[in-house]
Amino acid sequence: MRYLTTDDLRALAIGAAFLGAGGGGDPYIGTLMARQALTEHGPVAVFDPSEIPDDALCVMSAVMGAPTVLVEKLPEGREQLRALHTLEGHLGHAITHVMCAEVGGLNSTLPIVAAARSNLPLVDCDAMGRAFPELQMSTPTLDGIGAAPMVLADDKGNTVTLDAVDNHWAERIARSVTVDMGASAFIALFAQSGSQVKQSMIPGTLRLAQRIGDAVIDARLRKDDAVAAAIAASGGFRLFSGRIDDVERRTEAGFARGAVSIVGIGDDSGRSLDVRFQNENLIAQLDDGRVLATVPDLVVLLETETGQPVTTEELRYGYRVTAVGVPCDRRWRTPAGIELVGPRYFGLDRDYVPVESLMEGDAP
Amino acid sequence: MRYLTTDDLRALAIGAAFLGAGGGGDPYIGTLMARQALTEHGPVAVFDPSEIPDDALCVMSAVMGAPTVLVEKLPEGREQLRALHTLEGHLGHAITHVMCAEVGGLNSTLPIVAAARSNLPLVDCDAMGRAFPELQMSTPTLDGIGAAPMVLADDKGNTVTLDAVDNHWAERIARSVTVDMGASAFIALFAQSGSQVKQSMIPGTLRLAQRIGDAVIDARLRKDDAVAAAIAASGGFRLFSGRIDDVERRTEAGFARGAVSIVGIGDDSGRSLDVRFQNENLIAQLDDGRVLATVPDLVVLLETETGQPVTTEELRYGYRVTAVGVPCDRRWRTPAGIELVGPRYFGLDRDYVPVESLMEGDAP
Repeated sequence: MRYLTTDDLRALAIGAAFLGAGGGGDPYIGTLMARQALTEHGPVAVFDPSEIPDDALCVMSAVMGAPTVLVEKLPEGREQLRALHTLEGHLGHAITHVMCAEVGGLNSTLPIVAAARSNLPLVDCDAMGRAFPELQMSTPTLDGIGAAPMVLADDKGNTVTLDAVDNHWAERIARSVTVDMGASAFIALFAQSGSQVKQSMIPGTLRLAQRIGDAVIDARLRKDDAVAAAIAASGGFRLFSGRIDDVERRTEAGFARGAVSIVGIGDDSGRSLDVRFQNENLIAQLDDGRVLATVPDLVVLLETETGQPVTTEELRYGYRVTAVGVPCDRRWRTPAGIELVGPRYFGLDRDYVPVESLMEGDAP
Repeated sequence: MRYLTTDDLRALAIGAAFLGAGGGGDPYIGTLMARQALTEHGPVAVFDPSEIPDDALCVMSAVMGAPTVLVEKLPEGREQLRALHTLEGHLGHAITHVMCAEVGGLNSTLPIVAAARSNLPLVDCDAMGRAFPELQMSTPTLDGIGAAPMVLADDKGNTVTLDAVDNHWAERIARSVTVDMGASAFIALFAQSGSQVKQSMIPGTLRLAQRIGDAVIDARLRKDDAVAAAIAASGGFRLFSGRIDDVERRTEAGFARGAVSIVGIGDDSGRSLDVRFQNENLIAQLDDGRVLATVPDLVVLLETETGQPVTTEELRYGYRVTAVGVPCDRRWRTPAGIELVGPRYFGLDRDYVPVESLMEGDAP
């Protein structure tokens, strides 16, 4: 067990934005909220999955919806607690631990707010090892664990409790409700026992995020290459460096969809990279058609100068960015994992090839 | 208290389809289901509101969605009970009585199924005195009684429990969930104490429906004018007789919207009537622009030959029909009632004038 304090938030925000692979929402808002909650309520206890009792009742606290909309709706934390308490009432058992649904901007920091304000410990784990746009894209789904019963709460006071036959139905109904609720909703979901958490969640992702964030901050202080530091800390690969030439973006059925075009600089002069996204980055493809990385591996865009991860809603013409590819959790590389979150699910007409294999093809 | 048996169903179906004002769904399916439930489980006890204890817990059982879709999805009754039991669990109290949300085709007969299969009595009342397309259009709304907590259940096994800040939000979120659930859902809602039912519901609407149905059946047996019998039993007015010339229909955002054009016969030769609907008939207007009746008053189309009410989904070219106008419940004629269910709410650019005043203008 360790304690998470306001001192940890800066590194965590950077690392979580990195692992968010372009999605997960604006880390700044989540960090502000977490700072305020930790200041008011004190540090939050964080347990590794191996440290929690098998009969613990762990619940994910998250926000669902298009991050572009959420930026304009600064939440207060009250809705998060209403979602958790409503689920607790529905389950008829006290929730003992809060968890992250994904590691990515807002959804890494908002559970800290929920934990602080409800005086519950966090478990250091998440269900994606990155961020994904749909809620069934969670490792517990691979083990047949239900996202539902789940609760959605909005800022107007509406609360919806959903019992779904499977996690695709949970996603579908919850997505419609989220759109009605103003395109974003606070959710409590994937209630699991401690033993299920040990089996089905991805452990240590908060610690990994902090390590990546610390590496970036250290490199900046030492005037080192912060991008290289982030790559080393994450086990990733440098894919491409350039300047953003074009961003196409639309909010569609509650998702932020679009693509960014990057014109190469330095070693990458004379070619360009196209990155498509649906909340998160999905695929990095050169103008000659060669694919450098696809979901479920992480495609991360970093500000080349500072190593700061750039979320899809922050993409702007003229930014100098470096694209990085990071291997995803091994569970996403199984046939069931690829069916759930592979390229074809996102409408990309290609098979999944791990980023390290694609990189080997790149070697001279 | 009286008992409702299979012998009552034929008259009830005719009268409920009449009061449904074109909406409420196919009475045939509901009657089949009710007949089967009453045969299996025996008669259902029906109490007048004045006969139930003040601390009763009464809940409406209904179906939500586009009737055109429901016709293709014959329900089994299991979903109705799941909705009721889930709401019971959420409320933490045993439901003592089942009620109708509206008097109209399916929603008059499905609560009989729920009552028979759950061995609960019915209360002879409804929340509209007719059928309406949206759930906040209920007399309890005028008294500040919440539709939520409400439960939606579908045939796939999904269940949604909704706590909404007001009945417009309940309608909005429930409508989206209904669309996801396949355009129709079984709902349990408007939980009320016995004393609230006495104050806020419209009493005796099942009895009224049976009286109208009996009058039609009697007239047919006596080879009398069944339309005239229905008008006399309902306190309505004959508006227009003719033959259906055109039907325009679309399913839009979960509603069956459209219009029917009727060319006059007999006394009405040389003119035509246009009836617009949104699940229910909204307005009857002559080709010279004169309005004969509008919501919240009932606009009912009857087969001229048999007095059989014709629902909006049954409207077909060539049918000989008589349009009838019936005064709505007095609560709908208050300013708050007209705001909730008056012509302007349905996008009609005119003030509400009671059907009997419009008829007086018609006198020589």
